[in-house]
Amino acid sequence: MDYKAKWMEGNGPESAIVVSTRVRVARNLAGVPFPGTMNEIQAQGVIATVEAQQGVLEDMHVQRMAELSQVDRLALVEKHLISLDLANKSDGAVAISSDQAVAIMVNEEDHLRIQCLLPGLQLEQAWETASRYDDLLEAEIPFAFHEEYGYLTACPTNAGTGMRASVMLHLPALVGSGHVGKVLAAIGQFGLMARGIYGEGTQAVGQMFQISNQVTSGLPEEEIIRNLRGVVEQIVAQEKAHLKKMTATSRLQVEDRVFRSIGLLSNVRLLSTNEAMSLISDIRLGVAADIIDLSPGLLCQLMVLAQPGVLQKECTESLDSQQRDVKRAEILSKRLKQALRGGNI
Amino acid sequence: MDYKAKWMEGNGPESAIVVSTRVRVARNLAGVPFPGTMNEIQAQGVIATVEAQQGVLEDMHVQRMAELSQVDRLALVEKHLISLDLANKSDGAVAISSDQAVAIMVNEEDHLRIQCLLPGLQLEQAWETASRYDDLLEAEIPFAFHEEYGYLTACPTNAGTGMRASVMLHLPALVGSGHVGKVLAAIGQFGLMARGIYGEGTQAVGQMFQISNQVTSGLPEEEIIRNLRGVVEQIVAQEKAHLKKMTATSRLQVEDRVFRSIGLLSNVRLLSTNEAMSLISDIRLGVAADIIDLSPGLLCQLMVLAQPGVLQKECTESLDSQQRDVKRAEILSKRLKQALRGGNI
Repeated sequence: MDYKAKWMEGNGPESAIVVSTRVRVARNLAGVPFPGTMNEIQAQGVIATVEAQQGVLEDMHVQRMAELSQVDRLALVEKHLISLDLANKSDGAVAISSDQAVAIMVNEEDHLRIQCLLPGLQLEQAWETASRYDDLLEAEIPFAFHEEYGYLTACPTNAGTGMRASVMLHLPALVGSGHVGKVLAAIGQFGLMARGIYGEGTQAVGQMFQISNQVTSGLPEEEIIRNLRGVVEQIVAQEKAHLKKMTATSRLQVEDRVFRSIGLLSNVRLLSTNEAMSLISDIRLGVAADIIDLSPGLLCQLMVLAQPGVLQKECTESLDSQQRDVKRAEILSKRLKQALRGGNI
Repeated sequence: MDYKAKWMEGNGPESAIVVSTRVRVARNLAGVPFPGTMNEIQAQGVIATVEAQQGVLEDMHVQRMAELSQVDRLALVEKHLISLDLANKSDGAVAISSDQAVAIMVNEEDHLRIQCLLPGLQLEQAWETASRYDDLLEAEIPFAFHEEYGYLTACPTNAGTGMRASVMLHLPALVGSGHVGKVLAAIGQFGLMARGIYGEGTQAVGQMFQISNQVTSGLPEEEIIRNLRGVVEQIVAQEKAHLKKMTATSRLQVEDRVFRSIGLLSNVRLLSTNEAMSLISDIRLGVAADIIDLSPGLLCQLMVLAQPGVLQKECTESLDSQQRDVKRAEILSKRLKQALRGGNI
């Protein structure tokens, strides 16, 4: 189905806690002003330069934001394939691989943002893939590079490697025990930071947190990734320990919470995005705690289907806010009931 | 099943709103002090006098409170067959008909409280049945009667006819619209009063209200009942009007509320009596609003099964409070799921 990005398969290592991994590299064309200051002709020139690399892009097709409907752009944001910033730029574009694991944003903050998104904890694999596309493109296009500063980027905090790696973590036990604040505050000393589910400046919803490297220079990419992996593994271990403690001391209460959320999500008639995320979070907790057997992939799909853009794409007619709540309830409850009838519980 | 009192069949007239009807007459044996002041020997004498009326009692069997376990007594209270006052009196007794429609309490506040409980709005039928037992017993036992005051009772407010008729109403739309207070306040001028689900001094739970006559003398029984019926019919009409308005303006919200409660009640793992009553109330609203098709009888049974005594009777081992919440969740969700699988929705 069209809405299934690769990461939504949900089946990678540690997938009960690590929802997805993303690695992106920021690159800019030598001799062309950064997107923030370039003119319309230069912007079209960058897109044309990318389009010309059919040998690298293979089955990927460059789609201009201006040619996509607002709903289609929003749906791409909700699937984490493009940023909200790019969705709002009429001179932006994106090329997406057929398995929707690779998305190259064009004319976002930088000329190119080469991203790879995979399910579970797959930092090295995502880095390798992003890096391979980077190498292939670099062989054809001269990138802005400085002997001392490394790859040049619109914002200096991205300069150097131009790489940002991040993982999306679901941390209900650390949230429930009140320890999440302390844990996330501590990662700063490792040059990492925590953000909400839709990136910078967004709130943590559904007990999801995005952890990424803050520093992009001074270290080789492999070391940045090793450092991030080490911290993520520690957070995963802590989440598991708190989950174990939680189910040891309050098994019944946890089961009750999980099954109440299943009961609600499979029966509601009106459902907001926020409530959907919160119910899905509780059900995901049930999977992590071995209370129910549902695929993490289903939960990723439900999470994305709960978003207004993807939801709108599922419908033929245009929906207002209440109609979306009705449709969201209908689609999510149907999917969940189908999965439950599948004999998992 | 043992716990099914006649009223729990839930199938009488107006059963979507009128849960049950009860008529009781208070009678005392001439020449014997009222229960509040009589001694142990006199109390046993009253029980023996009742036991001697096998021709009237037919298949009824006089059970002494002292011979029943606390759980059995509590279960009888929860089925509305005896009062909590009687359950706590060691010298009390009760005779219950095999269909559990008639229950004669012995040595409660008065020597005899002859009660008939029927499902739905059946005031005349309940009065006829109670009255028939009254006539049969009066032919054998001399009752305390005063030319001017009528039947004498321990509390003067019961003297005269000694009759109290009541109906249990489920009024979610009047509660939801905020009109229930005004409606119930107005019934005082008709010599009626409103109380909670377990009688005098109890709270209204599950949006249930008991309406009964306050005045027991000065009017013949038939007129008291006609008066009560007239007011009840008006309240039922008002509830229906508010329900219609509610579903016309907020159909989706009402459906959402009903199905959320179905989802919760069929999935919870921990359930208190109060939450159960509130969920059952919402589901009953769904039946009244034609949103779902479940028998009112099932809802009556769930309502009674939600109570601690009846619940304990369903189990072999003795339960603490949390175990009761687990068992309540288990039994109620199982019954509801069975009924839903029955193909009703």
